[in-house]
Amino acid sequence: MGKTIAEKILSNKSGQDAFANDIVVADVDFRMGQDGTSPLAIRAYQAMKGEDICSPEGAALVIDHSAPSPLEGVSALHTLMREFAQEKGIRLYDIGEGVCHQLIPEKGHVGPGSLVIGADSHTCTYGALNAFATGVGSTDLAAALISGKMWFKVPETIKFICHGRLPAGVYSKDLILFLINQVTADGVTYMAAEYTGEAISQLSVEARFTISNMAIEMGAKAGLMDADDKVMEWVCDHSNNQFEAVKADADAEYFAVKEYDVSDLTPYVAKPHRVDNGVPIGEVAGTPIQQAVLGTCTNGRLEDLTIAAQVLEGRKIHPDVRFIVAPASRQIYLDAMDTGVLKTLVQAGAAVVTPGCGPCVGTHNGIPSDGENVISTANRNFKGRMANSNAFIYLASPATVAASAVKGEITDPRELGSGLSN
Amino acid sequence: MGKTIAEKILSNKSGQDAFANDIVVADVDFRMGQDGTSPLAIRAYQAMKGEDICSPEGAALVIDHSAPSPLEGVSALHTLMREFAQEKGIRLYDIGEGVCHQLIPEKGHVGPGSLVIGADSHTCTYGALNAFATGVGSTDLAAALISGKMWFKVPETIKFICHGRLPAGVYSKDLILFLINQVTADGVTYMAAEYTGEAISQLSVEARFTISNMAIEMGAKAGLMDADDKVMEWVCDHSNNQFEAVKADADAEYFAVKEYDVSDLTPYVAKPHRVDNGVPIGEVAGTPIQQAVLGTCTNGRLEDLTIAAQVLEGRKIHPDVRFIVAPASRQIYLDAMDTGVLKTLVQAGAAVVTPGCGPCVGTHNGIPSDGENVISTANRNFKGRMANSNAFIYLASPATVAASAVKGEITDPRELGSGLSN
Repeated sequence: MGKTIAEKILSNKSGQDAFANDIVVADVDFRMGQDGTSPLAIRAYQAMKGEDICSPEGAALVIDHSAPSPLEGVSALHTLMREFAQEKGIRLYDIGEGVCHQLIPEKGHVGPGSLVIGADSHTCTYGALNAFATGVGSTDLAAALISGKMWFKVPETIKFICHGRLPAGVYSKDLILFLINQVTADGVTYMAAEYTGEAISQLSVEARFTISNMAIEMGAKAGLMDADDKVMEWVCDHSNNQFEAVKADADAEYFAVKEYDVSDLTPYVAKPHRVDNGVPIGEVAGTPIQQAVLGTCTNGRLEDLTIAAQVLEGRKIHPDVRFIVAPASRQIYLDAMDTGVLKTLVQAGAAVVTPGCGPCVGTHNGIPSDGENVISTANRNFKGRMANSNAFIYLASPATVAASAVKGEITDPRELGSGLSN
Repeated sequence: MGKTIAEKILSNKSGQDAFANDIVVADVDFRMGQDGTSPLAIRAYQAMKGEDICSPEGAALVIDHSAPSPLEGVSALHTLMREFAQEKGIRLYDIGEGVCHQLIPEKGHVGPGSLVIGADSHTCTYGALNAFATGVGSTDLAAALISGKMWFKVPETIKFICHGRLPAGVYSKDLILFLINQVTADGVTYMAAEYTGEAISQLSVEARFTISNMAIEMGAKAGLMDADDKVMEWVCDHSNNQFEAVKADADAEYFAVKEYDVSDLTPYVAKPHRVDNGVPIGEVAGTPIQQAVLGTCTNGRLEDLTIAAQVLEGRKIHPDVRFIVAPASRQIYLDAMDTGVLKTLVQAGAAVVTPGCGPCVGTHNGIPSDGENVISTANRNFKGRMANSNAFIYLASPATVAASAVKGEITDPRELGSGLSN
């Protein structure tokens, strides 16, 4: 019987011939924690007493949520992480290195066929590299640090076939907001998503990360894609490890197959306070905004900053808008400097914060005020997500965020001539 | 009878023939508040009921202490400032523009002979431009916004004559730390300081700002310098206003005249927890550090970043050190990008934060942990200054901070070949 990508990877890693709904114990290739979750994992590890870390080289801790630390209490947690990493020989990415979900692929820790867990819900990002990657709790991370293994219920898979090519000015962020709206926030709960079709294969690897990143926003445990030539080349550029592409069998069994023609898709915006509350941009255009955010593990990559810079070239941010930019990593920050993209953003009026999560999770670097509207490239617009439950968050593509920052209201980027290939 | 610079400016602005210890009411040319003090000034203004702002074009509010906002409560204060500025027609410099004490000179609001007040103790910075500039309380700022005037007790003046030229690797920051150590933190209380002599005139205007900035750390109400050609040129580059140099009379009366030959000065470091606790670097070299900070209104200018970059070129920050860089303004950030200085800093391992006050005042962006040593280019090392009273702050020049960041311990920058002209 044929297998999905998820079934194949979990079979490979568990040594069992596993299918959906089987329980397996699998070898985990890489384990990750960030500064919101690692301290809890470390405490749990300590409570388990005296066990060694299995393969410390297969783990990393990342300080990204509050980097640099805005509070004394947070600084103490960072110290806890630094000391633990040093003692156990685990790699620690400190302040300024970037967001975990950019660093783990960028530093070559993951590739096709990998099994990765991270104590962060958006660990599913690496599915764009054909890896089974999923978010876990801090206690699970602690146990996996010791054992190198984790149990999984092998998920069913829903296959999304996206036909057609996205039109100019419409990006992978618009596509995933559209798909989430179609299936709702719990449409893929505990299952894996496989994203395929011409609209996916036409995308750069950077653009694909955006889609896999938000798989969790439809409830998915993993957001998987094929390892085509673009992926293999990307991974080869970033890692010295050998990886082998994992392809679903033609006769694999899917829970459902959903097909969409996206060649007429318009820019999409998720309205407050749900990610699945997406609408074509026409329905919200004109909504005044006070803050615009470009960055995060969803859309803080060089391609995202470049798209925004193309919209902003020669333009100024609206005087009533704060425009916060958080490059997703130090490398992206340097690349954006080299290409002139960073200069364009700053000249337009951007306040660039340290590479990291920025204001996405409300830890610092741009908490909105009561009653304010924020347009953001992030992945979540829940009430209170940015640490003010009286603010309103709209999610959109980098092009839409940039165009809206210029106009001071939600704006279709195509009105400002955003006709970038995507 | 001859007059000091302070006596002349306060005479000009009050229309009185004023000498030390006279009380005058003077016209204030420019009034400034930042986000730590402006909300209190606005509340005081509102309590005074219904009066208009005198010359709103002669005032500015700056959001620099917590930019972007790390807390919902702070965001509400920022909103209060934005709304007040908009309603009253006062210029507001929002997040990402930079530190008030860089912006007020850089944007051309101050020059030789100006009388400036700011609701921030380091307003004395502008004395390097031959302006009488001093810090005031928020209530005084509110009254001055309405009246355009303020009362002053004309200060006595202590004249500092610095003979000789600073040796290579020794900078204006070392000089002012040395002078503060000589006279102590209350050596010039309520008086004006006049800084003069070859060691001052050889300095760039950027380097002079560092000295005037720290005049308050010897208790001075103002830290004044002559408007030589360098100053007139600098002001001409930054302002469309006309200014006239104010020179002390040869027969002016000074409370004291202090003379130093600084041609053999070594790098200086102020030990915790007092600014006047300075020592030649040899006495503290080797002290381990965990955080290094480059920036602030004292040393966040292009020249400062450039000096640090020259030390860091081709080197990496010590793995146990976090190196936080806060350019003092958007323009400096752009200039550092253009010159390659920013790239050098980031490649060496810097976490660059948004132009603004950064971690200097402990509002966010790098709160140290318990027991940590910080070496910083800032102006204050008081216990708890950086929001952790169990941390230890050492103050030093950009070269010393950069060298120490590389070595992981307090290091004489001359050991790393810092032989820049200064």
